[in-house]
Amino acid sequence: MNLILLTETDFYHSNCAEIDDRRFVHIKTIQKPLIGDFLKVGILNGDKGVGEVIALSDQAISLRITLSEKPPEPLPITLLLALPRPKMLKRVLQTISSMGVKELYLINSYRVDKSFWGSPVVEKQIKENLILGLEQAGDTQLPNVYLKKRFKPFIEDELPAISQNSRSLIAHPYEAAPCPTPSREQITLAIGPEGGFIPYEVEKFNQCGFESIHIGERILRVENAVPSLLSRLFEI
Amino acid sequence: MNLILLTETDFYHSNCAEIDDRRFVHIKTIQKPLIGDFLKVGILNGDKGVGEVIALSDQAISLRITLSEKPPEPLPITLLLALPRPKMLKRVLQTISSMGVKELYLINSYRVDKSFWGSPVVEKQIKENLILGLEQAGDTQLPNVYLKKRFKPFIEDELPAISQNSRSLIAHPYEAAPCPTPSREQITLAIGPEGGFIPYEVEKFNQCGFESIHIGERILRVENAVPSLLSRLFEI
Repeated sequence: MNLILLTETDFYHSNCAEIDDRRFVHIKTIQKPLIGDFLKVGILNGDKGVGEVIALSDQAISLRITLSEKPPEPLPITLLLALPRPKMLKRVLQTISSMGVKELYLINSYRVDKSFWGSPVVEKQIKENLILGLEQAGDTQLPNVYLKKRFKPFIEDELPAISQNSRSLIAHPYEAAPCPTPSREQITLAIGPEGGFIPYEVEKFNQCGFESIHIGERILRVENAVPSLLSRLFEI
Repeated sequence: MNLILLTETDFYHSNCAEIDDRRFVHIKTIQKPLIGDFLKVGILNGDKGVGEVIALSDQAISLRITLSEKPPEPLPITLLLALPRPKMLKRVLQTISSMGVKELYLINSYRVDKSFWGSPVVEKQIKENLILGLEQAGDTQLPNVYLKKRFKPFIEDELPAISQNSRSLIAHPYEAAPCPTPSREQITLAIGPEGGFIPYEVEKFNQCGFESIHIGERILRVENAVPSLLSRLFEI
């Protein structure tokens, strides 16, 4: 946790917040601050700054907040990701959140196991994992996550509007061009499930204007493909 | 598992192998081949090719092996990584192995918890996790992993020889230049622990010719920093 993320409900005064949950436990056991120390804080979907420790007990910590900085710039990307299995989804949510993705569509695909859609991660833990990613990266802007359980209606009815005015890419190792060089161009990127999109799905993306790209002959797991592609596509 | 990795002990005849362990369970439950089907195989530290299914029971599968391809090119990198905590180490070993790193030094640092060195992953599971990465990526060349439990003697006595004839970089977000653009240049790259290398350690690396580089203001976890840096540094 490189940033303590606060929400309105943490404030007991216009510029003072008290926290007593897992954030407090982390601060108490890892950061071990003293009264008068300054900790990095941010307001969820707001600015960043510092919190001066003004009270500290075994149960809670109080911080006087001064905001002075904007959060890091988001990546100009909309990511479409075939729903990964629950354990990987948790990590991927933290990854995309820490790397600055703000628009994520979790989509269905032939090789997505139906049971994944009923997982507790999808039902309840999306926001929780996104917040862990923000705290890691020092960001405050919560990504938007959309669930699209039906492939064809999504591709045909929604994708054209989502991907317009962007360069549209699908990560697919076969009959593909090398990944473009880093830029600040607006991108819509589709990444398939373990085992990849099936040919029909790739064709649907291609029909919607998506170019097939690859990042080498090695087949990466989603958890590595996501940071590799993001890092390759965007200038720092 | 995108490649079945075989070793000498799997062969009962010069070109026929029988397997009955976790690889067999994976093949049986996921790939579900029939007699006469061809599966992708590779020889550990050798070539790749196909295995024709010539016998299949509830206990084992036999394959007739034909080798025809070289494994993918390794990345021209030597990676120095502050020993991560055990759970992350497992994933990082799989990541570096799947992405083509062949030389990995796990090193000590002030912020590496001493208990990590006694973890079962360090003691026994390094090879196992490297092999999982090779199977994922379709590679056969096992990376070399070296354990360096003492920071100063390693940096002073061993690092100059390791990093000579390479561009030497340390990923460090402060007073750093942007990460170089993708190339095929030989690189030695040092990545710190959670919380980063301490100033003394960065200074030791800098004295040894390592340039400080960053990949943006966001602070990434090691599991994301590794694929992001590898993908950014090397051409496909």
